[in-house]
Amino acid sequence: MAKVLTSRSENYSQWYNDLVMKADLAENSAVRGCMIIKPYGYAIWENMQAELDKMFKDTGHQNAYFPLLIPKSFLSKEADHVEGFAKECAVVTHYRLKNDPNGKGVVVDPNAQLEEELIIRPTSETIIWNTYRNWIQSYRDLPILCNQWANVMRWEMRTRLFLRTAEFLWQEGHTAHATKEEALQETEQMINVYGDFAENFMAVPVLKGHKTESERFAGALDTYCIEALMQDGKALQAGTSHFLGQNFAKAFDVKFANKEGKEDYVWATSWGVSTRLMGALIMAHSDDNGLVLPPKLAPIQVVIVPIYRKAEELEKIAAKIDPIVAKLKSMGISVKFDDSDNRKPGWKFAEYELKGVPVRLAIGNRDLENGTIELARRDTLSKETLPIEGIEEVIEKLLEEIQTNIFQKALDFRAEKTTKVDSYDEFKELLETKTGFFLAHWDGTAETEEQIKNETKATIRCIPFDAEEEEGVCMVTGKPSKRRVVFAKAY
Amino acid sequence: MAKVLTSRSENYSQWYNDLVMKADLAENSAVRGCMIIKPYGYAIWENMQAELDKMFKDTGHQNAYFPLLIPKSFLSKEADHVEGFAKECAVVTHYRLKNDPNGKGVVVDPNAQLEEELIIRPTSETIIWNTYRNWIQSYRDLPILCNQWANVMRWEMRTRLFLRTAEFLWQEGHTAHATKEEALQETEQMINVYGDFAENFMAVPVLKGHKTESERFAGALDTYCIEALMQDGKALQAGTSHFLGQNFAKAFDVKFANKEGKEDYVWATSWGVSTRLMGALIMAHSDDNGLVLPPKLAPIQVVIVPIYRKAEELEKIAAKIDPIVAKLKSMGISVKFDDSDNRKPGWKFAEYELKGVPVRLAIGNRDLENGTIELARRDTLSKETLPIEGIEEVIEKLLEEIQTNIFQKALDFRAEKTTKVDSYDEFKELLETKTGFFLAHWDGTAETEEQIKNETKATIRCIPFDAEEEEGVCMVTGKPSKRRVVFAKAY
Repeated sequence: MAKVLTSRSENYSQWYNDLVMKADLAENSAVRGCMIIKPYGYAIWENMQAELDKMFKDTGHQNAYFPLLIPKSFLSKEADHVEGFAKECAVVTHYRLKNDPNGKGVVVDPNAQLEEELIIRPTSETIIWNTYRNWIQSYRDLPILCNQWANVMRWEMRTRLFLRTAEFLWQEGHTAHATKEEALQETEQMINVYGDFAENFMAVPVLKGHKTESERFAGALDTYCIEALMQDGKALQAGTSHFLGQNFAKAFDVKFANKEGKEDYVWATSWGVSTRLMGALIMAHSDDNGLVLPPKLAPIQVVIVPIYRKAEELEKIAAKIDPIVAKLKSMGISVKFDDSDNRKPGWKFAEYELKGVPVRLAIGNRDLENGTIELARRDTLSKETLPIEGIEEVIEKLLEEIQTNIFQKALDFRAEKTTKVDSYDEFKELLETKTGFFLAHWDGTAETEEQIKNETKATIRCIPFDAEEEEGVCMVTGKPSKRRVVFAKAY
Repeated sequence: MAKVLTSRSENYSQWYNDLVMKADLAENSAVRGCMIIKPYGYAIWENMQAELDKMFKDTGHQNAYFPLLIPKSFLSKEADHVEGFAKECAVVTHYRLKNDPNGKGVVVDPNAQLEEELIIRPTSETIIWNTYRNWIQSYRDLPILCNQWANVMRWEMRTRLFLRTAEFLWQEGHTAHATKEEALQETEQMINVYGDFAENFMAVPVLKGHKTESERFAGALDTYCIEALMQDGKALQAGTSHFLGQNFAKAFDVKFANKEGKEDYVWATSWGVSTRLMGALIMAHSDDNGLVLPPKLAPIQVVIVPIYRKAEELEKIAAKIDPIVAKLKSMGISVKFDDSDNRKPGWKFAEYELKGVPVRLAIGNRDLENGTIELARRDTLSKETLPIEGIEEVIEKLLEEIQTNIFQKALDFRAEKTTKVDSYDEFKELLETKTGFFLAHWDGTAETEEQIKNETKATIRCIPFDAEEEEGVCMVTGKPSKRRVVFAKAY
């Protein structure tokens, strides 16, 4: 069968687009920059949502829902915030259509103009903090630990499926606290939740750290992030958690009486991950044959393909397979027995490879006679013939092994692609031929950061939490620096 | 403790508003007609979602996601559809804000006008059928059984929390089929799913039937509905399933090659329920003390309130209660041990009554000595003291009993409020003093339906599937009729 994907080495970007389309994950819609998430892609997203939602609830959060539309004036209340989002807003100005007097369908009714224009939420800090004002009077009302699963819009000029779309799906946590310490603790807790999720479910190793001031969320005092490395050596910001200080409380006048009866502004955090994670998942593991999915997020963990000619052969195979399917399901393993007769086994093999199903079993007449079954691993593309007896336990163990193996592979790749650099000349030279994470000293100024970005297109991905103290000098200015930061070209 | 709610007899409508607010279910936002669903209300909605989602998947459906925004021209492609929705559309005309030259915050950038205005989806038939055109070539691609969980907007002039809001949350199923029969079967299957959900989870009995032509979904050939009766005797449409024929396939040119190789238009259905179900749930069961929730949808099924003065007393109670909590959880029962010390037991009792927690346990010093615990049922407001030993099994059985009891009560209420009427004079007279479902003969014309609506405000809720054949005459025109239809004033 001909390869359906452009190879990564030929054109990584085209490979990604091909894969997203061919594996039925998503496609572009008739509306500029807005994607359609197809059932198979959405099933992966649902698995992500389920795990994240559980982690949020386990850390004491509750879900709620706030309006899609935000009064335009709300955005202006926090100066940095409006600066960051105004250019990307979709604006609702009218609320009615009417028949075109010239008979050409419908037109916007000019008599139904809104008094104040509304924007489609690019993020919900403003509408939520306007609401929290009424929810919070005293320290007894705190903390508020809310999360929202929602769609948001940012009118991006250059869009790419999952990675950057005008509309995307995400969750946004918005918490309110009585003290700075508690808010900082929450900010850190949530970046750790994201890190755990990325590493233990997505099998994507991440660096955790602070964003530089210029890369912070608009309105935040500090932004923590997780940064992942894709197979093309480019970084991808996979999640952020923001310490908002009292900025939004001040902008929306949210005060509380503390235990001593003194009034103070409330402390805030917000944190989010989006369908962008789908992009990270796809790019971190997949190969030229298609998706490679970590078992913990795969909609189908095991597929079983019968190989037969006559209906009676299929019957015999089904009689052998049905109890295996039942047992796997009872073990919590999602399994599909693909006995559809409109496709040949070879087509099915390629299809499930393309879709990243971690384990594929195939069974034919000869296997029935021998009491065997063929097992193929998606991650290593290896095959072996095994006794059918006890195959369920083999699979259970194998799924764990695949999960670990995929993560280890990504971890090794990152180690290989991480380079310490000590001079700016070396840095620039390396960037000509090499990608990945570059650890270098930086003087801590926005000017130097900007210069490096302009001259090399590399940005500071983060100042890692666990960066060792190390006396050094900025590779550009020679000014003193106490730790290395992480540079990369990024999505 | 003073009653926090207006009583139902005093002002039913105010009682509903009070309850939604005081029980922390939802509130109005700064944006006209858009609500905020608060964590407790959202937790009930999440339980509804989980059950419905399972039912959809068990009947072979998959979730997907389609864009929030729809090109205005799409709406016009199906004539009835645009007629039904154009007046309620929120319209996006621009995509950027900029700093006000007069320094007053931000204004809409006139240079960033959209070429074609976009509407915020009021429902997604148009964008989805525009997509299906590319997904469907042959009968092998059918059926497509997609569902979407999403927010939609309909610019309603008079809004009420949950019952009618400009933005609401819902699910919308959109299926594509090779034959008319299959599409009709799907339409019926889904109204049955909704009926099962309403009765078995919400404990709300529903009538299932056809809508009249004038009450059909805009663009449908037939609309099936479930109709519930609220405590004020008004009807509430709780879910609809539409047979769309080939209307949308024709509007968006979606054809397929059938098994014989002949081209035909694809057959369609769509079906949805929304956060309006929250309104139905609240109004069907609750009383003047607050919410009454069916155990199957209650976020907290059992609350345990300790009664103590000193910390050491609480410790002893906790030692007794902790294993009970653990056992209940292991039985799949959601339980909260409210040992917070900032509220008195009396306050907690009232609060959990207001929030409709089905079972409340209270335990104090005396109980510890006697090996007893006090159990209160929310549905009957009855209390009894029981041995603490084996209380978990008592609770498990009781939760089922409460679920059944709430349903039976609503069913009895409906029976009591259902009246056969044979003359229009009697009908009009009855409507002066009585509410509920009225079963009457109707001549099947839109004119008569309209006349009755204008003169009495009662509408035909449905033509029940199970209506007995009965020779009769229309109560208004005297023309022949073969079965009674259901009239009511409605939300």
